[in-house]
Amino acid sequence: MGNKQNPDLETIREAANRIGPYIHRTPVLTCRNLNDISGADIYFKCENFQKVGAFKFRGATNAVFSLSENELTRGVATHSSGNHAQALALAARNHGTKAYIVMPNNVPAVKIEAVKGYGGEIISCEPTLQAREEMLDKVVKKTGALFIHPYNDTRIIAGQATSAMELFEQIDDLDIIMVPVGGGGLLSGTSLATIYLSPNTVIIGAEPEGADDACRSLKSGRIMPSVNPRTIADGLLTSLGTLTFPIIKEFVSDILTVSEENIIRAMKLIWERAKIIIEPSGAVPFGAILQHKYKFIGKKIGIIISGGNVDLNNLPWNK
Amino acid sequence: MGNKQNPDLETIREAANRIGPYIHRTPVLTCRNLNDISGADIYFKCENFQKVGAFKFRGATNAVFSLSENELTRGVATHSSGNHAQALALAARNHGTKAYIVMPNNVPAVKIEAVKGYGGEIISCEPTLQAREEMLDKVVKKTGALFIHPYNDTRIIAGQATSAMELFEQIDDLDIIMVPVGGGGLLSGTSLATIYLSPNTVIIGAEPEGADDACRSLKSGRIMPSVNPRTIADGLLTSLGTLTFPIIKEFVSDILTVSEENIIRAMKLIWERAKIIIEPSGAVPFGAILQHKYKFIGKKIGIIISGGNVDLNNLPWNK
Repeated sequence: MGNKQNPDLETIREAANRIGPYIHRTPVLTCRNLNDISGADIYFKCENFQKVGAFKFRGATNAVFSLSENELTRGVATHSSGNHAQALALAARNHGTKAYIVMPNNVPAVKIEAVKGYGGEIISCEPTLQAREEMLDKVVKKTGALFIHPYNDTRIIAGQATSAMELFEQIDDLDIIMVPVGGGGLLSGTSLATIYLSPNTVIIGAEPEGADDACRSLKSGRIMPSVNPRTIADGLLTSLGTLTFPIIKEFVSDILTVSEENIIRAMKLIWERAKIIIEPSGAVPFGAILQHKYKFIGKKIGIIISGGNVDLNNLPWNK
Repeated sequence: MGNKQNPDLETIREAANRIGPYIHRTPVLTCRNLNDISGADIYFKCENFQKVGAFKFRGATNAVFSLSENELTRGVATHSSGNHAQALALAARNHGTKAYIVMPNNVPAVKIEAVKGYGGEIISCEPTLQAREEMLDKVVKKTGALFIHPYNDTRIIAGQATSAMELFEQIDDLDIIMVPVGGGGLLSGTSLATIYLSPNTVIIGAEPEGADDACRSLKSGRIMPSVNPRTIADGLLTSLGTLTFPIIKEFVSDILTVSEENIIRAMKLIWERAKIIIEPSGAVPFGAILQHKYKFIGKKIGIIISGGNVDLNNLPWNK
């Protein structure tokens, strides 16, 4: 089933076993009030409660704990200003190796401190993609560290797939599974877990209208890069990858886009009613339900909440 | 053990069975990061995930579902601007009876809407304690409804005790159990559950420095009313009652007071690190750990998070 490059069920099971001792098996929450508002029956898989506050820790842990002895002596490297940076730093520390994190010099101090707190070594660069890639290249050449891409990597995809795998163990007979889509690591992993373990469940991606490259890519049949993406959902600014896109193209039924207004409304509703802290990217699937309500009425829906890392001093409804 | 007026273990078990179908068995969360900060091993019993967002729903449900047939035809009444109002309204609706809620006319619209949303009938009055009590008296005389006090009522105390009872089923061998104290319904109920079910666990109350009547009462040996209490923890402004105080006096080891600064710091840390929404009152016990750290290092501590009803447009760290 699918491309032979894609992780198969055995590979995802191996990933789950490999990362099991290091990750949280996150809880699934329901909220009567949000069900009443949406007319649907929603199960939130809470990766905001995952270590480092995001699902990204699953993929990063799987990648780091898959390294050879030789690779382990040299460490791992990436460029990221977001959850992948923290995830890779903690995964590396847990496995006793080094993580070199290239970060743009305009990143808020709190993010730098978080990566340092997990033992990552920060290398600062100019805030352009070109500068990030060049600096990463230098770091890799100098240290021999292995570059771990945030999503375009089969070990990452297999790791992210474990969240949906757990969700299917926790909740039966979902009509729909929905996750946010940025680079597509979570959506591609979720797709594979779904076709292997719950093939009758419809797979839907949700993304901001201001970063709708996945929607356009699915329509055109080829990867359409993000052009000046603008959204409060800062985890979803990236474009699909060469490994994630073919999986999404083959198995995802639909990519729904969501307005900024509905992302913020969904985020605030989940905070107020379900009493959990989620980041804007994590609110996009529920935002899609608010915006495309008729598609979801009466359905049993699993949503993977991507994470809960938010600046509490700078909330979107206080602007 | 204790006063014969106090609910015994059988009464608390009956309360748990009576309310079981209507309440959530709330989860217990831990957070590595908060343990590292405090040097303690903390288990948060999440009543912020309870229906209506607060433990108050336990006591209100127990009281309403204990009514006689005759009382049920006339309904219940209370004066409250807080969680007890919502709790009583929903409990009454669940049992098919009426709830008359006297609320001061300066209460935010969102609280009025919440009570109305649960089917409560609002009666507005001037914002003084005297006006509230007079209006309640009028309503009771006119409707024949039974006044349900927010805490000075054995059915309420027995209902609140069920949260600690669940916590002892969920987590063994707690050294300390700590809850916030306002009128003392939660603290007295928790005390009874503890002496019956986990007698080696030390019971501690936590309250704001700006509303330290329980601390003063425990020291003086008699109820010292709050005088102009001022605190962000608006659920803890009330004074102890004639039923709650004797239980607290007999079984509680200590009442710790907490500065406003530490309440806000505790609340923000729990939001940021544990990714859950809690109200200021619910942050007071963790604030006590931050403020009196040496008492708690190395201890296994259960904290009942009282609730999660907060105005997201008006957060204390954004002032």
